[in-house]
Amino acid sequence: MPRTSLMPDPSRKYRPFPPIDLPDRQWPSRRITTPPRWLSTDLRDGNQAIVDPMDAVKKNRFFDLLVEIGVKEIEVGFPSAGTTEFDFIQGLVRSGRIPEDVTVQVLTQSREDLIRTSFASLEGARSAIVHLYNAVSPAWRDIVFGMSREQVRQIAIDGARIMREEAEARSGTDWNFQYSPETFSTAELDFSIEVCASVMEVLKPTSEKPIILNLPATVEAATPNIYADQIEYFCRNLPDRDAAVVSLHTHNDRGTGVAAAELGLMAGADRIEGCLFGNGERTGNCCLVTVALNMYTQGIDPGLNFSDIDRVIEIVEYCNQLPVHQRHPYGGELVYTAFSGSHQDAIKKGFAARERQNDDAWRIPYLPIDPADLGRTYEAVIRVNSQSGKGGFAWVLEQDQGLKLPKRMQADFSRQVQALADQAGRELNAADIWDVFRRTYYVQTSDKHFQLVEYEESRAGDGTRIFSGTIAVDGKEQSVSGRGNGLISSVIATLRDSFGVAIEVQDYSEHAIGKGTDAQAAAYLECTMDGGGTVWGCGIDEDVATASVRAVLSAANAAAALSKDAC
Amino acid sequence: MPRTSLMPDPSRKYRPFPPIDLPDRQWPSRRITTPPRWLSTDLRDGNQAIVDPMDAVKKNRFFDLLVEIGVKEIEVGFPSAGTTEFDFIQGLVRSGRIPEDVTVQVLTQSREDLIRTSFASLEGARSAIVHLYNAVSPAWRDIVFGMSREQVRQIAIDGARIMREEAEARSGTDWNFQYSPETFSTAELDFSIEVCASVMEVLKPTSEKPIILNLPATVEAATPNIYADQIEYFCRNLPDRDAAVVSLHTHNDRGTGVAAAELGLMAGADRIEGCLFGNGERTGNCCLVTVALNMYTQGIDPGLNFSDIDRVIEIVEYCNQLPVHQRHPYGGELVYTAFSGSHQDAIKKGFAARERQNDDAWRIPYLPIDPADLGRTYEAVIRVNSQSGKGGFAWVLEQDQGLKLPKRMQADFSRQVQALADQAGRELNAADIWDVFRRTYYVQTSDKHFQLVEYEESRAGDGTRIFSGTIAVDGKEQSVSGRGNGLISSVIATLRDSFGVAIEVQDYSEHAIGKGTDAQAAAYLECTMDGGGTVWGCGIDEDVATASVRAVLSAANAAAALSKDAC
Repeated sequence: MPRTSLMPDPSRKYRPFPPIDLPDRQWPSRRITTPPRWLSTDLRDGNQAIVDPMDAVKKNRFFDLLVEIGVKEIEVGFPSAGTTEFDFIQGLVRSGRIPEDVTVQVLTQSREDLIRTSFASLEGARSAIVHLYNAVSPAWRDIVFGMSREQVRQIAIDGARIMREEAEARSGTDWNFQYSPETFSTAELDFSIEVCASVMEVLKPTSEKPIILNLPATVEAATPNIYADQIEYFCRNLPDRDAAVVSLHTHNDRGTGVAAAELGLMAGADRIEGCLFGNGERTGNCCLVTVALNMYTQGIDPGLNFSDIDRVIEIVEYCNQLPVHQRHPYGGELVYTAFSGSHQDAIKKGFAARERQNDDAWRIPYLPIDPADLGRTYEAVIRVNSQSGKGGFAWVLEQDQGLKLPKRMQADFSRQVQALADQAGRELNAADIWDVFRRTYYVQTSDKHFQLVEYEESRAGDGTRIFSGTIAVDGKEQSVSGRGNGLISSVIATLRDSFGVAIEVQDYSEHAIGKGTDAQAAAYLECTMDGGGTVWGCGIDEDVATASVRAVLSAANAAAALSKDAC
Repeated sequence: MPRTSLMPDPSRKYRPFPPIDLPDRQWPSRRITTPPRWLSTDLRDGNQAIVDPMDAVKKNRFFDLLVEIGVKEIEVGFPSAGTTEFDFIQGLVRSGRIPEDVTVQVLTQSREDLIRTSFASLEGARSAIVHLYNAVSPAWRDIVFGMSREQVRQIAIDGARIMREEAEARSGTDWNFQYSPETFSTAELDFSIEVCASVMEVLKPTSEKPIILNLPATVEAATPNIYADQIEYFCRNLPDRDAAVVSLHTHNDRGTGVAAAELGLMAGADRIEGCLFGNGERTGNCCLVTVALNMYTQGIDPGLNFSDIDRVIEIVEYCNQLPVHQRHPYGGELVYTAFSGSHQDAIKKGFAARERQNDDAWRIPYLPIDPADLGRTYEAVIRVNSQSGKGGFAWVLEQDQGLKLPKRMQADFSRQVQALADQAGRELNAADIWDVFRRTYYVQTSDKHFQLVEYEESRAGDGTRIFSGTIAVDGKEQSVSGRGNGLISSVIATLRDSFGVAIEVQDYSEHAIGKGTDAQAAAYLECTMDGGGTVWGCGIDEDVATASVRAVLSAANAAAALSKDAC
């Protein structure tokens, strides 16, 4: 269609959602302090919304994953939808793979044959939830059914009666009932309560054996505070509230499905239905991973286990054939990554501070959760591109090679990497950065002016040190020697005497890389040149002394290169 | 790392976010009635968080898109970060591509050289916003800076002074100031207010020339109602509130960045910073598309134009090299798709009701927005897999071929397609469904028992109709004729007399496909067979009479196939 320059005026087509009259609402002052009951509808609401629905192999794989994570209530399908669904559910029940503490749930419309089929699909189950629904909102009553409120209420009552009858007739299973006034979020609150109360009158739940009343935001139609108002109103006005478990089922049409679920919990709900990583019709259901880990980061154990989140993602992506987005909270590939230099710097300081602190409290800037709690590693946290600055390059080098550059050397190195990053216009990986380092400081490369072949160190009668060794100059080996107060100064003297390289040491540091017998040493030198200017050197070797010698030669190579450039 | 069976106990590591003491909060009773000022930070916060930052070509492309959408404030970069950034910004300013009503914004840390560089990068701009920030929260003060509150406040004051100085010295530009107390959401509210007030004392904003105070949820750390409390508290306690534009900058670490922005608007903010489709560090920034279209669906014109959303997605994906997720609100590939049969059925009824209604009001079940408003088409709305049921197949056939099957024929056809869907285990496309239809009802296929070659219709003296024509039976042509009260009964009689096919018409309907001279006709027959059982027929032809004849032959073919199977 041809593109219009402006969108149509929305005021003709769309109406604001009416506010809920609840001036004394309590939920904004409440907090979430305990986890809800979790119901996964990945195998139902999730499965019905994917391009290629799961086959039995995928469904079983997903079911096992949910059990492993710790989900205790799992909606496994819509048994009256077709043979595939029915057979899968009956097969699952018969397979013995449902643990004792896990209850399966099936969904059915409120029609006699469908309800009976649903009960039949669960034949042999230890316990089960049969989930009845019908839509109650005015739009659905008028447009879809052409029914009055009374007729819609009667559908729910009739369905409840058949459920009661079926449950009584099938005594081998511990039957639990769930009723959803579908389209709850766009229905008249008092009517939803009336229908739920009618269903309760039929099924006679008690506080010991409550009914689950699930209140769907079938389509998210307002800001999430409105849904919370609706939930609080419902909880406060439902007769016999104690005999009901109030359950939330939010969708994400306005991008606020997680928020609606959280505010709904504050408003008094006991249970949440959703899918892993928010799969489901259209924009998806509430993401159970996000809600659970949001609680976790507030110190509340959600009772769900995402300690190997990458494995969860792998199975979910395989079953749904839909990706988890790179920025999906907690799970996305990029959510523990900081490209910005100031972020990287703050994170580094946070980890350093953590090593010094006395408690376990998590206070790392820019990281709301410890990636290790989810089986992610710190190495992935910092990545480097042209936006990164020096903190990032140094971090990568430290993580990748164990090198802890002195601060001023970081700055020097940063300029070199920045030039490459600007030029490359892409992310630099650890290998890129290591490559720049090796070329800049003539480390572990054969392409250099001065190359150490071998050396010996001895002590003269006056206590000074004597360096004598073989150095290849552009590949041509020469025997050289020099004397100084220490090893480094003896090498400096050798270079000055034999090759005319005039550098003076300003700063020196050395540290171990790794531990035990495999450990290596890294030595760093900051040197000034006689004609002005600063060069840095780095040497790496198994032997601490040899690392120092290599560092001097590294600085000499840099100085020689600068002199050559100047000529 | 080895997988642990349970996650670590979170109560040792994480603390609940402390509530805000605001018992008389007003925002939960307020509504969003006007759009905020929008600031896109796609070229800054967005760009710094992508794996391969944009080059100048991509940045210009993105800038032009933002202008086209109607964004009037655009943060174009961090000029002191490097030459690439500086040169792009200066180039943009000099290029003349910034429209008169668009203001560019640049971000700078509070350091003298960086602030001066930032002003320099905007040399020649008609108007601009210089955005100063420093982090104010205790974690950043302690861990990152090692500074007291007073020192942190002084950094902001010093930065503001340099801004004032630079602005006074560079008189050619209409300078506007923005200050962000970074990490606002995890800082002490009174301290944030104190720092903002100190900055205001230096810059002396007025209600005519206000300062922008941007309040970042740098890391989302609590439920979104807490952020709204923070915003309301800030707005109520800031001295000289009239001289400030309160701006929101939310992130999405807890999946509630959009909700926080919306509740923050209700709490009194005037402006929102974010990115298209929520790009940005880690889990991303607030998605401006979602917030804007959420308003649109409430009848409020957001002042942003997404009437060709697919084009916006294409450019954003090209520039960021990150996909917009299939389920992203408003933009995702699957968000206007209904796979479930009951959803499809309700949507069909919604569209039908819409044709009859007197106003423009949008009341389509399961679709919170008219896809056409975003340049999407209805055809994409309904897709069919094994979870779909009869509503979906019929809809696809109607959309794709213009065929409106009678209700009982829909049910018959549904059984055929369901079998294929179960067997295929994948989504069925329109071609699959049309193929099943053609094979089931012997329409437009050469692979059939009875094939019409040609016919003539004449009227007998007694007013009855005479059918005489050529029918190929398994390819062998035969001249046949018969007589009846009408055309259809004359063909039925012919088939009975010549070939022993005994069927009787139960129902008949016919409708036009398309309009004008290109229109075709589709005829449907429901027939019973002498031995019992029902068959359906369908005929399509440019001529209404011929369509009927073809429908009879279609039913006869079905009957013949059944008889053959029975033998």
